[in-house]
Amino acid sequence: MDSKTSLVWLNGHVVPASHARIDPSDRGFLLGDGLFETMRLVGGEVPLLQRHLDRLQEGASILLMSLPERDVFSAAVKALVHASAILDGSMRLTVTRGCGPRGLLPPEEVQLTLLLTINPGAQPVVGAPIRLGISRYVRDGTSILSRIKTLNYLPGILSRMEAVKNGFGDALLPGSYETVAEASSSTFLALLDDELVTPPIFDGALPGISRGRLLEMGLCKERSIALNTLQRVHSAWLVTALGLTPVAGIEENLLFHDISRTETIADALFRS
Amino acid sequence: MDSKTSLVWLNGHVVPASHARIDPSDRGFLLGDGLFETMRLVGGEVPLLQRHLDRLQEGASILLMSLPERDVFSAAVKALVHASAILDGSMRLTVTRGCGPRGLLPPEEVQLTLLLTINPGAQPVVGAPIRLGISRYVRDGTSILSRIKTLNYLPGILSRMEAVKNGFGDALLPGSYETVAEASSSTFLALLDDELVTPPIFDGALPGISRGRLLEMGLCKERSIALNTLQRVHSAWLVTALGLTPVAGIEENLLFHDISRTETIADALFRS
Repeated sequence: MDSKTSLVWLNGHVVPASHARIDPSDRGFLLGDGLFETMRLVGGEVPLLQRHLDRLQEGASILLMSLPERDVFSAAVKALVHASAILDGSMRLTVTRGCGPRGLLPPEEVQLTLLLTINPGAQPVVGAPIRLGISRYVRDGTSILSRIKTLNYLPGILSRMEAVKNGFGDALLPGSYETVAEASSSTFLALLDDELVTPPIFDGALPGISRGRLLEMGLCKERSIALNTLQRVHSAWLVTALGLTPVAGIEENLLFHDISRTETIADALFRS
Repeated sequence: MDSKTSLVWLNGHVVPASHARIDPSDRGFLLGDGLFETMRLVGGEVPLLQRHLDRLQEGASILLMSLPERDVFSAAVKALVHASAILDGSMRLTVTRGCGPRGLLPPEEVQLTLLLTINPGAQPVVGAPIRLGISRYVRDGTSILSRIKTLNYLPGILSRMEAVKNGFGDALLPGSYETVAEASSSTFLALLDDELVTPPIFDGALPGISRGRLLEMGLCKERSIALNTLQRVHSAWLVTALGLTPVAGIEENLLFHDISRTETIADALFRS
């Protein structure tokens, strides 16, 4: 296979991306009816695959969707790694409720669409520092849909686009109560009053995989971060399943200089 | 063309649906990054096409998306009607931000995906009466995204699926303030205290095309409908761009018998 041919795994088969066809009646395309996971690939393995599949299962329950056995997904990872010969980088798993007739109700016999894509090139575990704007889009932590990773991603997309247009690297999305929820596609972690803290789920934070591990390891605590306490933050990071990005500042007037804990967090999450 | 071959218009070309290919990197499919309109087709024409395109334009502005000239869409309607020989039924126009690289930001050169589909068979303008459940999903009328018809449709999908599972025909979604917003994909219109009323936008109602026409014609007023005033409702209807459905009752204990205004509303919206 030409090394420039990008491959994907779609519904059980590895095919060139240029030949992979999503049906125009796919409910993922028409209604955002689905879920996804973005996963780190290291040495041909997804180290936290079972955690990602746990979260996918949680999302599927809320979306009233029946997933196939987990073997299907682990076999997909193996097949795509093998065929592409890409060992390091990231993968994205997308699951939609498949094709359907007109309207909101799925067909009686649902045939999920399963897509796994692979991106070569390990990102650096620690990204370059960025500044954040505050988004005008809010994450409603009282909605069960804010707790799972669905294809309904417009608030994140628009927050990021508007932040970049305003000269920032990313955006912080508030929750419903004048608190921080998370960034457009990552967990917000902050050093506040000498404690490493991250917003609780009911403030609109997605239960990220890395966020869960930080809490389990006792490296941070859940704590509401009121927007008007951001001035007391000394350092902050955006954390995803792929790495972490130091926050250099928020909006125009807040600047963070102390990023001394960056390597400790990176080691705990991605180098152990 | 075999009359059983379903046709779609995709990015400027009429093709059999079975050959139409959405790219797996389409942002509509991966992130719900797009908009749609469902339109009535009568005698080979979409009678309210310009209104639908107005709303699409409003959505595109909020999504920071540049639409092509309107001629493109009217030509698409003509081409698909002509090729399919379907004169009556409905059409759905889907616009996504097209393909993109990994991540939330679109590419520098965006090439929108434009899909128009056609469904034969005029639905009856007045549907059979249905009962409604109250959804546990809420529409946040303070979000600008609740005012446009995006592909982020999970609250509507899940409301409908759960309502049907519970033996109802559809669901009412509350707004953020214990008021009614709308049904899973239609405007809620009610006879309350001898007035025809429909929830205001800030209670989470989508500015539907038929809703707008009813307001313009002076046939109904905007008024917040608190969930605990539903017991004072005497009649109610769900209204879309395609028709209206009388509401026979809400949850277990509310029953509506007076549907005497159904034909008046149907005449004003769909038969004049």
